[in-house]
Amino acid sequence: MKPIDYNTAEGILFTDQYQLTMAQLYFDQGLHEKNAQFDYFFRRYPDYGEHKAGYCIHAGLEWLIDWMQKSRFGDKEIEYLAGQRNRENKAVFKPDFLDWLRHNGDFGGINLEAVPEGRVVHPNTPMATVRGPLAMGQILETSLLNHMNYPTLIATKAARIRSVAPDNLILEFGARRAAGKGANAGARAALIGGADFSSNVGISHILNFPPKGTHAHSMVQVFLGLGMSERDAFQAYADVYPDDCLLLVDTIDSLESGVPNAINVFENLKKKGHKPVGIRLDSGDLAFMAIQSAKMLNNAGFEDVSIVLSNELDELNIWQITSQIREEAGQYGLDADTLIKRLVYGIGTRLITSSGSPSLGGVYKLTAVEDKGEWKTAIKISESVAKIPNPGAKKLLRLYDEREKATADLLALREEEPGRQKELTLCHPTDPAKKRCLEQKNITAMEALLLPVLKEGRLVYDFPSIDKIRELCTKDLQRLDSGVKRLMEPHIYHVSLTQKLWDEKQKAIIELT
Amino acid sequence: MKPIDYNTAEGILFTDQYQLTMAQLYFDQGLHEKNAQFDYFFRRYPDYGEHKAGYCIHAGLEWLIDWMQKSRFGDKEIEYLAGQRNRENKAVFKPDFLDWLRHNGDFGGINLEAVPEGRVVHPNTPMATVRGPLAMGQILETSLLNHMNYPTLIATKAARIRSVAPDNLILEFGARRAAGKGANAGARAALIGGADFSSNVGISHILNFPPKGTHAHSMVQVFLGLGMSERDAFQAYADVYPDDCLLLVDTIDSLESGVPNAINVFENLKKKGHKPVGIRLDSGDLAFMAIQSAKMLNNAGFEDVSIVLSNELDELNIWQITSQIREEAGQYGLDADTLIKRLVYGIGTRLITSSGSPSLGGVYKLTAVEDKGEWKTAIKISESVAKIPNPGAKKLLRLYDEREKATADLLALREEEPGRQKELTLCHPTDPAKKRCLEQKNITAMEALLLPVLKEGRLVYDFPSIDKIRELCTKDLQRLDSGVKRLMEPHIYHVSLTQKLWDEKQKAIIELT
Repeated sequence: MKPIDYNTAEGILFTDQYQLTMAQLYFDQGLHEKNAQFDYFFRRYPDYGEHKAGYCIHAGLEWLIDWMQKSRFGDKEIEYLAGQRNRENKAVFKPDFLDWLRHNGDFGGINLEAVPEGRVVHPNTPMATVRGPLAMGQILETSLLNHMNYPTLIATKAARIRSVAPDNLILEFGARRAAGKGANAGARAALIGGADFSSNVGISHILNFPPKGTHAHSMVQVFLGLGMSERDAFQAYADVYPDDCLLLVDTIDSLESGVPNAINVFENLKKKGHKPVGIRLDSGDLAFMAIQSAKMLNNAGFEDVSIVLSNELDELNIWQITSQIREEAGQYGLDADTLIKRLVYGIGTRLITSSGSPSLGGVYKLTAVEDKGEWKTAIKISESVAKIPNPGAKKLLRLYDEREKATADLLALREEEPGRQKELTLCHPTDPAKKRCLEQKNITAMEALLLPVLKEGRLVYDFPSIDKIRELCTKDLQRLDSGVKRLMEPHIYHVSLTQKLWDEKQKAIIELT
Repeated sequence: MKPIDYNTAEGILFTDQYQLTMAQLYFDQGLHEKNAQFDYFFRRYPDYGEHKAGYCIHAGLEWLIDWMQKSRFGDKEIEYLAGQRNRENKAVFKPDFLDWLRHNGDFGGINLEAVPEGRVVHPNTPMATVRGPLAMGQILETSLLNHMNYPTLIATKAARIRSVAPDNLILEFGARRAAGKGANAGARAALIGGADFSSNVGISHILNFPPKGTHAHSMVQVFLGLGMSERDAFQAYADVYPDDCLLLVDTIDSLESGVPNAINVFENLKKKGHKPVGIRLDSGDLAFMAIQSAKMLNNAGFEDVSIVLSNELDELNIWQITSQIREEAGQYGLDADTLIKRLVYGIGTRLITSSGSPSLGGVYKLTAVEDKGEWKTAIKISESVAKIPNPGAKKLLRLYDEREKATADLLALREEEPGRQKELTLCHPTDPAKKRCLEQKNITAMEALLLPVLKEGRLVYDFPSIDKIRELCTKDLQRLDSGVKRLMEPHIYHVSLTQKLWDEKQKAIIELT
């Protein structure tokens, strides 16, 4: 068999055909090196059906920039494009365009500003803006969306799961149900948004996180198949991993067999001076099983070992499990809070696929194009006002109030200085009747969210470590009102335009219709 | 910035940590080279909420085998594992195990049988079986599941979409909403299950399909921003691509502006002897817009140009659109069938994410282990009978009836010859009361579905081209009863065990409980 040529499929050709046909048209019209601005933003928070998000966590930037720095049109790509044939069996791409692409087909001319990874972001505000030559800015679209949409979706889901398990370890287990190699981007995003560790060895390695994992049912099955017992399997595990002994107890029957066998093995470990780590429950009524297991472990003197829960968990299931434990634990003589604190969550499918809302509809829209030194608004007038992008070059500011909570994200024209105005008018992005006045004295801080990342293709940004990104995320979530963070029917965070930007948008709409 | 080390993250370490800790335990116990059998199967068809699947299309095999042939533990991986530290800051992996892994850490000893890609598959029947040394068979789990679950999910979704658009071109547009590099595996699976082309350039290139695409809204916006018109943009497009002129008409207003401008440009093309290709509608009530556009195009003499529809399409939306066209077209003097035939569907998000059911719960379960030359059943006894895997070495047969329809998939013991029995008892996999008797004379064909792919790691299978795989898929779907293919509440296809396998399973359950 011929090895799969992933390098070609994942390089500069990881784009949509129409980006290339448009690039050739721009070349043909002499527009290809005109400066253009594109904004990356999403229009709606993820909606999971029974519940929905009131914020997103931005992720994906570093890997996008890595892709941009590695990818360009080389001989192999040009040769392939030269061979593309149209309906009439003529070349799709002409030699002069391909020649230009061979010499200019990289992202060396791109200026990119972006909101740092890990930060809270909201709809209809640019999470990244791209300025640069029209043709290459256009070709960037597909890969930029691919590199940012999915990680932002997963970081957001991870943050929601974290919100219902604030004091628990959260482990990402999803590689087997992920979309191919997307497993790695997903695991990274999960770590950004709220997971503590991943079971995925490769991604943990390159991010410098210790991967987590102990054993599966198959280990116990091997012992059973060979005429030995679950206890033998557990003892063998304890012998090899005396200081990391966490046992999966539901291969036969958790309460009748698994937990008693685990306790027996833990007792042996204890005698030898080792501290057992925990048990894992992977089926059944996890709240009930956790309670019963905790009772058995406590009675045997193992109050400190962890109880890991896994099996189709997500933010609602965990919320439900902890609610049920709060209701029931007392009946079994257990303190609910103590039990909940010792839980660890292993989360696979529903995190890595953002179950309920498996895509983020982020878009990359042309907002301005430069002509004879002047920036011209370029927006799409579709049938719904809400879908019309905010025109031109903008700045994005986050306003904090005296409680140190974020009170609004404000889009302004690039040249505006809203911090110098005594009173700010915050305009609703689509409804002219909805305005909010804010006096400067009630704004304790005004923060620019977009930071320079690439200047003429040159990296001018220091990528923080995942740990630093996690801190940014935690800090932003602390500064968000509880109502906005609610799992269901979250309060709507204010995203506003300045009066000047609002006026500019109306002008553009009128001119174009 | 340090380039992302994808090679490491996507190689042999693309697995879960517990596979490695189990492998070390097997090594420690002297079990690591015992022969074991693992089955890959799923338990439930995708359930999309309002609708659900009654079959799946198997995909992912070739890329899995490619990964297996490229991946092994090399110095870099061994060094990393040697550096892993546990809670007590001691090495997780011991030198003797790592030394074994350095010399044996590849898939050279693996025997793999699989159902070919493109074939219809059903729950609780092995789509692949792996036999080989326990440790490496175990380490394979995560990557095998990752390489097969997602493609099977997407090929299935594509087949459903194909079922509501049997005579239409279907284009895969999903890269921007896919999970990172999973976009490529998804596009390939879409092509297997029913899409005709993809917009994704790289994957189209390596699969030898022409990528499809014309232009986006941004092209029109550039012209508007520079003071020109939508018509100017269309004319420029027609000038560059006179034989491939397909115009996106909804940047301003489809019916008021886009379609009339397209017609004007098409007329110019026609005068110069070119045949215009079509228009694309990407917003609004697509059924209504298609009718109105068709009317305008027909009145102008362009009855033959295609109407491409896109925007959150899936099998239900397309079904709805065609139903609406059947109801309404007559009122506007159009023949519904003619209009439906000229439609082309561009399908992004909902195909590449399998919207409604974003994961396939395929599992990889140990079913037998060899001891002193004899295979021992190794199954997990969990709380639900339906979840207990079928034990040991099996064969998988598809039975066809006199209508040349598949009537059941039958699991038998490997040594059984169901073809030689006069009458077959088909046992329901879990319910002892449900049996079906089938006389041999009513079975017109009995086909073995699992084919040898790897023998002792050596490839013994010729991978068919995607075109051949598509033919397999089409043929299998033709041999499936319509009821099983229904979008909603599909008829349940029979998956049965032979009496002997049923007895074996009961025996194993009794022995282990």
